[in-house]
Amino acid sequence: MDFSGSAITMAAMAGSEVTDIAAALRQVLPPECVLGRPEERRPYECDGLTAFRELPAVVVLARTAEDVRRTLLTCQRLRVPLVARGSGTGLSGGATPHPAGVLLSCARMNRVLEVDAVNRLARVEPGVPNLKVSEAAARHGLYYAPDPSSQVACSIGGNVAENSGGVHCLKYGLTVHNVLGLRGYTVDGELLELGGAAADGPGLDLLALAIGSEGLLMIVTEVIVRLIPRPPCAQLVMASFADVHSAANAVAGIIAAGIIPAGLEMMDRKATAAVEPFVHAGYDLAAAAILLVESDGTPEEVREQVQEIEQVLRGAGAGAVHVSGSEAERLLLWSGRKNAFPAAGRLSPDYYCMDGTIPRKHVGRVLEAIEQMEDRYGLRCMNVFHAGDGNLHPVILFDANEAGSWERADRFGAEILELCVALGGTITGEHGVGLEKLNSMCVQFSPAERAAFFAVKESFDPQGLLNPGKLIPTLVRCAEYGRMHVHGGALAHPGLPRF
Amino acid sequence: MDFSGSAITMAAMAGSEVTDIAAALRQVLPPECVLGRPEERRPYECDGLTAFRELPAVVVLARTAEDVRRTLLTCQRLRVPLVARGSGTGLSGGATPHPAGVLLSCARMNRVLEVDAVNRLARVEPGVPNLKVSEAAARHGLYYAPDPSSQVACSIGGNVAENSGGVHCLKYGLTVHNVLGLRGYTVDGELLELGGAAADGPGLDLLALAIGSEGLLMIVTEVIVRLIPRPPCAQLVMASFADVHSAANAVAGIIAAGIIPAGLEMMDRKATAAVEPFVHAGYDLAAAAILLVESDGTPEEVREQVQEIEQVLRGAGAGAVHVSGSEAERLLLWSGRKNAFPAAGRLSPDYYCMDGTIPRKHVGRVLEAIEQMEDRYGLRCMNVFHAGDGNLHPVILFDANEAGSWERADRFGAEILELCVALGGTITGEHGVGLEKLNSMCVQFSPAERAAFFAVKESFDPQGLLNPGKLIPTLVRCAEYGRMHVHGGALAHPGLPRF
Repeated sequence: MDFSGSAITMAAMAGSEVTDIAAALRQVLPPECVLGRPEERRPYECDGLTAFRELPAVVVLARTAEDVRRTLLTCQRLRVPLVARGSGTGLSGGATPHPAGVLLSCARMNRVLEVDAVNRLARVEPGVPNLKVSEAAARHGLYYAPDPSSQVACSIGGNVAENSGGVHCLKYGLTVHNVLGLRGYTVDGELLELGGAAADGPGLDLLALAIGSEGLLMIVTEVIVRLIPRPPCAQLVMASFADVHSAANAVAGIIAAGIIPAGLEMMDRKATAAVEPFVHAGYDLAAAAILLVESDGTPEEVREQVQEIEQVLRGAGAGAVHVSGSEAERLLLWSGRKNAFPAAGRLSPDYYCMDGTIPRKHVGRVLEAIEQMEDRYGLRCMNVFHAGDGNLHPVILFDANEAGSWERADRFGAEILELCVALGGTITGEHGVGLEKLNSMCVQFSPAERAAFFAVKESFDPQGLLNPGKLIPTLVRCAEYGRMHVHGGALAHPGLPRF
Repeated sequence: MDFSGSAITMAAMAGSEVTDIAAALRQVLPPECVLGRPEERRPYECDGLTAFRELPAVVVLARTAEDVRRTLLTCQRLRVPLVARGSGTGLSGGATPHPAGVLLSCARMNRVLEVDAVNRLARVEPGVPNLKVSEAAARHGLYYAPDPSSQVACSIGGNVAENSGGVHCLKYGLTVHNVLGLRGYTVDGELLELGGAAADGPGLDLLALAIGSEGLLMIVTEVIVRLIPRPPCAQLVMASFADVHSAANAVAGIIAAGIIPAGLEMMDRKATAAVEPFVHAGYDLAAAAILLVESDGTPEEVREQVQEIEQVLRGAGAGAVHVSGSEAERLLLWSGRKNAFPAAGRLSPDYYCMDGTIPRKHVGRVLEAIEQMEDRYGLRCMNVFHAGDGNLHPVILFDANEAGSWERADRFGAEILELCVALGGTITGEHGVGLEKLNSMCVQFSPAERAAFFAVKESFDPQGLLNPGKLIPTLVRCAEYGRMHVHGGALAHPGLPRF
C-alpha cells in the first residue's frame, strides 16, 4: 500500500508508541472509548474493500463532536495519522486504517438532531444510517433522496466523504446535491460551518469541496441534508433486450426524449442470472440485458411518463415490456438490482465491484470490451449499472485463495477504468477513490491537476495527518505507475479528451 | 478600497512601470489587444457596481485561450495583479480593476464551440452572453436554465465567476448546478480541466470550488454547460396581497405544498409602482405586494400545478389572482420583474441593489425591518426578490451627488445583510462578494472559516495576483470593521446560528 502521502512512516511506529497514543487519548476521552487491544481493533481492519487490510494502532469510538475535536488535537500533537470511519461499507478503501494511526469511528454519533418540515431539511450526526434519515422524515411525507444500495447500513458521514449516489440519483442528484451544510473540525481542532439552511452561500464553495474529500480535509460532526416530498406514486418498467446495444440505445433514447426517470438501471444476463435464484425478482433470464426504468410523481404524471417510456423502449427494440402492478412488485424488482453484489458473493468466493462513468452513448462499446477482457484475464464479470447517468458497476468475480487471481482482477478493473477515461468518462461515479483507485487517478488527471489537489489538501492539512495515502496519488506513485504500465500511462492523454 | 490582499501596493506603481507592463504584454500579444492609453482604459474602470471605480494600468482584450495564458505568465513574471472581466454587468465589484494591474477582458472570446444535443451540453467560450447559449441550443429544443435579469448582456464566464442565479433557479439551480466542466489556466499558466461531460468526477471537487471563486483561483477559457429540454408549456400566475406578511405566507405555503414552481418572485408596492409606468406590465398597483409564480412542463402538468398554486394563493389571502392567457402576456409580466433595476434608475439618480438570502419563513419580518431602516437612513428602498429561495434584492435609492447619501446607502445595505445573517441567511444569493461585501464576510464567517478561504486561495495563487482584495477580507480588515462597527461585529456570533 502507498502511504507516501503520510507524514510519518510505518517504520517510525514501535509498539511502545502505540501504547503512548492510546494513553494520550485516554487522558482526554473516556477510557471505554479508546480501544487498544488487538482483538478490539480487529473489526476495524478493513471497510467494504476487503482486499486491503491494516490493523489500526488505536481505535476511538467518538460519541460527540467534542470527542472528535479532542482526538484531532491529540493526533496533531503526536503527529499521528487519523482515519475516520462511518459504517465501513465503503467500496474503495476510503476507511482502510493507517497501521500507525488512529481509526476514528463515528458510528456512535447516530442521532437525528432535528427534522424541519417547513424548511425541508434534517440536521443529523454523521453516524446516522442513510435510511434512518428518511424514516425520521416519513411522518412529514418527506425523505432523503440519495439511496446507495447499502442504505440500510451506510452512514450519512460516509456518504458525505465519498459523495455517494444511488439508483435515484439520476433524477435527484448525488450527495453533493442533497447536502445543505456541514459542521466539523479541521486537523487543528478549529470549528468549520460550511453552507447551512439558506440557499447558496458566499465565498469559496468549501461545502462542495468538503463533500467527497474522503476525510482528507476535515472531520464532519454534523450534516444538514435536504429533504424532498415523497412522490405520491411510482411505477417501474422492466424491459428485455436481445442484445446490449439495443438496450444501450434505449437508454440514450429515453434521455434524448426529454424524459428524466427516477431511476434508469441496466443489468446484463450474467447479473440477472446471478440475482434471480437468490431474490426471485422475476427477471427475464432469456434477455441479454434488461432495463429497469422508474417514473415517480403524481398518478397523472406517472401514467403519462410510463406511456412515453414504453413507447421509446419498444421503438428501441425491446422484447417483453412489463410495468409493475403494485408497490410490492416495484420493490421486489428493485430488490434484485440492490442485491446484485451480495448475489455475486454467492457465485464466487470473492468479487471486485468497479465504479466508472462514461458518456451514455458508449455503454454498448464498453460492455463489448469488457467481454473481451473476460477472456484475456480468465475471469468472469457481471454488469449492473446506473445506465441513465452512464455509471458502470462491473463486478469481477475472482478467488483470493487462487494464486494470481486477485492480481488479474485488479488489472482487469484498472483496464476497465482506463477505457472509461479514454471514452471521456471518469474512474469513479459514486464509490470514491480511496486506496483502490490511486493509480487510476494518475490516468485521469494531469500533473498540474494533481498538483492542485495536493495544494488544496496541504492548505487544510499541511502535515498530511488526515487519511494519508488516500484519494490523491503522489507524483512518485504516478511516475512508477506510468513506468510499470505504459498502456495506462499512454491513456493519460486519451484520444478522446474530456474537453 | 482594501487591496491588502494584493501582492504589491499601489505605491509601488510608477507611470514608467505601467508602460513596462504594456510593453511586456505587446511582446507576447498582438499590439492591438493591449490598451495602454487612458481614454482606451476608461470604459473598463468599473463594472455594474459603479460606486467603485479604478482605472486599470493596462487592458488586455484576449481573443484566445493562448492570449489568456500569455497574459497570466507575463503578469506573474512582473508580479502584476490581474483582474478578469466578462461583460462588466456584475453588481458586487468583482471586476473592479486594480489600479496597478491588468484588466483582462474576455468579451472577444465569444464563440459557441459545440452544441451536443445527445449529451445535452454546450461547449462555449467565457465571453459568450448567457442568452446566446440558449439561442444556439434552440434548434434542438434545448436551453441553458440560469437566467440572470441581465442575461442579454452578462457573459457565461462572469456567471461562472459569481455563481449567478436568476428567476428560474428555484427549480433549475444556480450556475454551479448547470456547469459540467471548466477549462482554464492557473496563475502559473498551467492548464486545468475540471469536471467534463461525464457525470460526477473523482478527486476533490475543484469544479465547484472554481465556480463562484470570482477570478481568485484561475482564469476560465472554456465552459461546458448543461442544456435541458425547453418545457412545452409555461404559465405565470400573478397574485395580489393586501400586506407583505400574507404574501410571505403564501410563498411558504406553496413550497410546503410540495410545489416547486419554475419561478416564485415577490415585488412590493414600491417596486411595482416604479416598474409599471415604465413597462406597463399590468401589475396591481393597489396591492402591498404581488407574487409571480410560474409553472412549466407538459400542458397537463401545468394545468394541474396552476390549479394547486391558485388554491394555495387564495388560501393565503390573495386578492386578485390572474393567470397569463398567452405567451406574450407571460413574457410581459416577467419583463416587469426583469426591468426592476432599470426602473429604479429612472426614479432615482443612483440605486444600490442588495443581494442577501434568508430562510423563507422570515421574509415578512425582514421587509418590516427594512421599512424601519428607510426612516432611520432617510432613504427609500424598493423590494424585488426571488421569494422561493429566500433571495432578497432590496434596491436602495440614493443620490451620489448629495453629501453623505452614498455612505448612508452603504450602511443601510450592510445592516440589511447583517440581519440576513442573524436570521440564519447569507450575505449574497447570486451577485457575489467582490469588493462590495468584504465587510459583510467578516460578519458571516468566523476567523477559522476565513483562514480556510485564505489557505485555499494561497494554494492556487501564493503571490495573490489574481483579483486581489476581492471576495476574502483580510483578518486586519475584519478587525477594523469589528471596531468601527461593533453592532456588526457582534453579529459575527448571531443569536440564530447557521446550525
